[in-house]
Amino acid sequence: MKDAGQKSSHPGELGAPKRLNRSTVSALDEILGTQLPVLDDGFVRVIDYMGDDSSIVQAAKVSHGAGSKKPGEDRAVIRNLMRHLHTTPFEMCEIKLHVRTPMDVWRQWIRHRTANVNEYSTGDSIANSAQTTVASQWRVQASKQGAGAFLPLEEGQLLSARESQFQKTSRDVYAQRIAAGVVKEQARKDLPLSTYTEAYWKIDLHNLLHFLHVRMNDHAQDEIRSYAKLIGQEIVAKWVPLAWEAFLDYGRDALVLSATEARILSALIANSPEGAKTIAESAGLLAFDKSGKATRNFEREEFESKLRFLGVTPSWM
Amino acid sequence: MKDAGQKSSHPGELGAPKRLNRSTVSALDEILGTQLPVLDDGFVRVIDYMGDDSSIVQAAKVSHGAGSKKPGEDRAVIRNLMRHLHTTPFEMCEIKLHVRTPMDVWRQWIRHRTANVNEYSTGDSIANSAQTTVASQWRVQASKQGAGAFLPLEEGQLLSARESQFQKTSRDVYAQRIAAGVVKEQARKDLPLSTYTEAYWKIDLHNLLHFLHVRMNDHAQDEIRSYAKLIGQEIVAKWVPLAWEAFLDYGRDALVLSATEARILSALIANSPEGAKTIAESAGLLAFDKSGKATRNFEREEFESKLRFLGVTPSWM
Amino acid sequence: MKDAGQKSSHPGELGAPKRLNRSTVSALDEILGTQLPVLDDGFVRVIDYMGDDSSIVQAAKVSHGAGSKKPGEDRAVIRNLMRHLHTTPFEMCEIKLHVRTPMDVWRQWIRHRTANVNEYSTGDSIANSAQTTVASQWRVQASKQGAGAFLPLEEGQLLSARESQFQKTSRDVYAQRIAAGVVKEQARKDLPLSTYTEAYWKIDLHNLLHFLHVRMNDHAQDEIRSYAKLIGQEIVAKWVPLAWEAFLDYGRDALVLSATEARILSALIANSPEGAKTIAESAGLLAFDKSGKATRNFEREEFESKLRFLGVTPSWM
Amino acid sequence: MKDAGQKSSHPGELGAPKRLNRSTVSALDEILGTQLPVLDDGFVRVIDYMGDDSSIVQAAKVSHGAGSKKPGEDRAVIRNLMRHLHTTPFEMCEIKLHVRTPMDVWRQWIRHRTANVNEYSTGDSIANSAQTTVASQWRVQASKQGAGAFLPLEEGQLLSARESQFQKTSRDVYAQRIAAGVVKEQARKDLPLSTYTEAYWKIDLHNLLHFLHVRMNDHAQDEIRSYAKLIGQEIVAKWVPLAWEAFLDYGRDALVLSATEARILSALIANSPEGAKTIAESAGLLAFDKSGKATRNFEREEFESKLRFLGVTPSWM
Repeated sequence: MKDAGQKSSHPGELGAPKRLNRSTVSALDEILGTQLPVLDDGFVRVIDYMGDDSSIVQAAKVSHGAGSKKPGEDRAVIRNLMRHLHTTPFEMCEIKLHVRTPMDVWRQWIRHRTANVNEYSTGDSIANSAQTTVASQWRVQASKQGAGAFLPLEEGQLLSARESQFQKTSRDVYAQRIAAGVVKEQARKDLPLSTYTEAYWKIDLHNLLHFLHVRMNDHAQDEIRSYAKLIGQEIVAKWVPLAWEAFLDYGRDALVLSATEARILSALIANSPEGAKTIAESAGLLAFDKSGKATRNFEREEFESKLRFLGVTPSWM
Repeated sequence: MKDAGQKSSHPGELGAPKRLNRSTVSALDEILGTQLPVLDDGFVRVIDYMGDDSSIVQAAKVSHGAGSKKPGEDRAVIRNLMRHLHTTPFEMCEIKLHVRTPMDVWRQWIRHRTANVNEYSTGDSIANSAQTTVASQWRVQASKQGAGAFLPLEEGQLLSARESQFQKTSRDVYAQRIAAGVVKEQARKDLPLSTYTEAYWKIDLHNLLHFLHVRMNDHAQDEIRSYAKLIGQEIVAKWVPLAWEAFLDYGRDALVLSATEARILSALIANSPEGAKTIAESAGLLAFDKSGKATRNFEREEFESKLRFLGVTPSWM
Repeated sequence: MKDAGQKSSHPGELGAPKRLNRSTVSALDEILGTQLPVLDDGFVRVIDYMGDDSSIVQAAKVSHGAGSKKPGEDRAVIRNLMRHLHTTPFEMCEIKLHVRTPMDVWRQWIRHRTANVNEYSTGDSIANSAQTTVASQWRVQASKQGAGAFLPLEEGQLLSARESQFQKTSRDVYAQRIAAGVVKEQARKDLPLSTYTEAYWKIDLHNLLHFLHVRMNDHAQDEIRSYAKLIGQEIVAKWVPLAWEAFLDYGRDALVLSATEARILSALIANSPEGAKTIAESAGLLAFDKSGKATRNFEREEFESKLRFLGVTPSWM
Repeated sequence: MKDAGQKSSHPGELGAPKRLNRSTVSALDEILGTQLPVLDDGFVRVIDYMGDDSSIVQAAKVSHGAGSKKPGEDRAVIRNLMRHLHTTPFEMCEIKLHVRTPMDVWRQWIRHRTANVNEYSTGDSIANSAQTTVASQWRVQASKQGAGAFLPLEEGQLLSARESQFQKTSRDVYAQRIAAGVVKEQARKDLPLSTYTEAYWKIDLHNLLHFLHVRMNDHAQDEIRSYAKLIGQEIVAKWVPLAWEAFLDYGRDALVLSATEARILSALIANSPEGAKTIAESAGLLAFDKSGKATRNFEREEFESKLRFLGVTPSWM
């Protein structure tokens, strides 16, 4: 946001110059319209955007008096907003994407309702392309020890061959209906969820970051996580680098301790293992079966992994 | 909303009684939880609701000073709100539904973003049931003369048999993947769009009426229109009968004339066919090709059908 | 939206060019940042925008297959979208304004919740300017015969003098508190509603048109109507001229007849005054008191004014 | 949500009983409609509600497969949802309040846009009551050492007397305008921001908890914090006690460490003061002026107070 600096009619108040140029981000302009590939036949393209890091600071200046003229302080302002959940200045930036995704990904995508959406309509030629799985990429249910394993290649080859055959059948079924004169909206009904669709998707930065928080997470499904990572790392990081850094630090990678967990950690640091144990028990985090073994508790197990990260051993282990 | 009538601490102002009972609608209570069937294996169930016709009037009394103590005037208040686009009082009523729909219907359903949604998650047993089409229900593309025709029965039988076979194959493909140990979220990827899913869907009355306006419309796809009609006629009509009547009259069944169309109609009523023609031409509604024939114009054709409804013949025909 | 036209990796499908330039509207660029004055000390400034008329068509092409390459058909597409309540393509345009309004106007403004907002925070110097009323502009309650009358000048002069004195007192009260060390957020509590505030306000075109529909209306309060008119006529009309024209025709200036009203009009056009009367009576629009005089009914009176516009005399008058 | 337990037509799937009773919370029913007083003349009243703790679990069962039949496990499910930001099940509960607040509080209140609102309209008798400040309650700007101090009583008495006189004048100004025949909407323009207004406010539980998070916070203004505390402690705690407990623990009272802060804490726990210092410096949290003194940095100061809570001394102090 570069104000041309004319005399304001309200001197000393909010900037009120006569002329303004739109904020532009050259790193984003360079990829505008370019298809960034995802999965075997999907993509994300930036169509347009509004605002940049300095627009966030400008909005904060209005609503929190937090702006700053000094160069180099934008980072502090943006981190401060992120830390204190002052989300409205981030809503002042907006981006419009053109995406191509399997319908199964799209189903999860549009559960985020705070965006504007125009989805490609009914069964056109475009609908006949489906997302395929190579033999090495069939994921198996995570065992207790870890996640992310794949089926042995030979088994995968069988499934991939069956997939290919099935998707071909689905195209034949569709084509037969169209040839018989059936309306497209009905002919489409048995296309597989792997069929690609396209959409325009427009969203403000605050809500986009929330989408990325949820969808870049390890718990998100692989396919949508591929899109989220691309949008974060290839688009948002270029568009608003300061906001992106603050989001990684205070959002995606933050360590959140519940009030109870903070009290337990405090006791452990103070070398009070019994105190820690007492808090954990009274909060329902810790209980023992008849044999004296701690019963399973997902909340405590997640807390224990936070403690491990901090290098602290829980007194009950 | 029945106020128990105690003395208010702000006499003469908004009702401020000490105790209140929740508004209830016995006609809706009677079907609470009951599966109302749609399509071959879908349903809609009312889970809970908040407010009734009198809650709308109560809210209007607050925001527009439009309330009334006299019995029988609720109808006038509600019609007045509907006519003047005073939508916020309708937002004071809320309903929660449990629905079961093919995923292709659900895709269209959740484009309406103003609701709260919890969709049934990944590929469980439930996912294996798919919506089927009986031989007589394969719709053919509407010709110029009309819509709603079906394929001849013999052709339909071929398609239905193929559909049945294909859906069986899709279940086999899914089962094979699960048996091989593939994670459900990936195994699910080639299920057909006709596969049923379930969701809880919670929405306020204003936004529900907008949903019904769009989805009960003749342009909506048959399948989702079946759900919309059921919700409107079997649920909303029982829940808030006065709001429903006003919506039909001023929403779904209203006749909207553009400013230009109203001026043309006015000229036709005043027996000024040339005046009407002149307005239509200057507004771009009417133009002639070299042979003197009016060129096709969808906007004008829709206007002509409004005129036909009113019993007026356009001067250019 | 000017696609640079490179070969798409999906030939025949949605445009997928390698590079894109942002859409720009030179008529809007010319006033970017300029304070457009409203009331005695308010203004509206355009800060940034996304999209133009052709972005609406582009989005429609995605979601309704309604796009067109032929020049001159954008207007038809946009009017078609507006007529059939296909609102999502209009959401693909976004605008950011900086506004300065009395707090009493702002209270009404932000009841429209579909925007992003950053309001100027607490009691700064800016807060001490209040909106003043010149002696000729004190509005009197509309009598039955008409609206818009003003107090006689001498009476207005008394009120304006009192206003000036009172606003000065309010500044003194505020200054006294600040001088005593009171926190600004509390010192501010008795500032008059006429005090100016400032905000950034960002909204998509669909929701902006809804805002303008409600706030340009004759029923809206004069002060906010001044802002709405300016935004419509000086900003939106320049930004998206085709959408603005369609909105005026099908939104602000449309003539909406309820289903009942349309049936009555049809009967009157068919020279069936008794039929018209019967419909009106059975719909509750028309009733008579003991002396045979039609009882007052706001809905019917509004309908009668629609009939007058069309040059039709109701049979019951 | 008590299902009457009939045989489902989809055995083994989501509960699909024939009849259902609405969920009720007797602790909330007991205060339904009762004015809970806030400030000198404000209140909050519960008008209606939908759902309870078990509705959250029920919705989670649909969308995350996380439900449980075993008694006593609802708490674990709700805490799990809260911890993992699975917010949609909390949206399945809805509450409607009637509130009476000074306009200055209301301005802040409705910045939260995810609610349905009907505000009391224009300048009625109700508008003439203003919030007053007793002599002991004039807050002074927080010094570096602390917040929450008040003006000496004698000074406060002067300000309270002036307030009373000024508010009386404002009523006289209003009354004079009304007597002269000025329309209420204009006569109202100079009423002080302390004037009470009333509204119906309806919101889902997820968004209500976000509102409470922001407005119960120490940074929130005293007046709105009084309302937020009342709503949280007197209403939400009774309505959904398990969700309220989880919110306090993981929301309001949680300890959030940025990724950087977590790494520094980890180094401090590992007795690596130099390592901690290096991380802090490279992240821009720590810098020294020429005299070797750490320069002020709000982010670091807030981090230091988190460390103090945990009983850890930063190595740079």
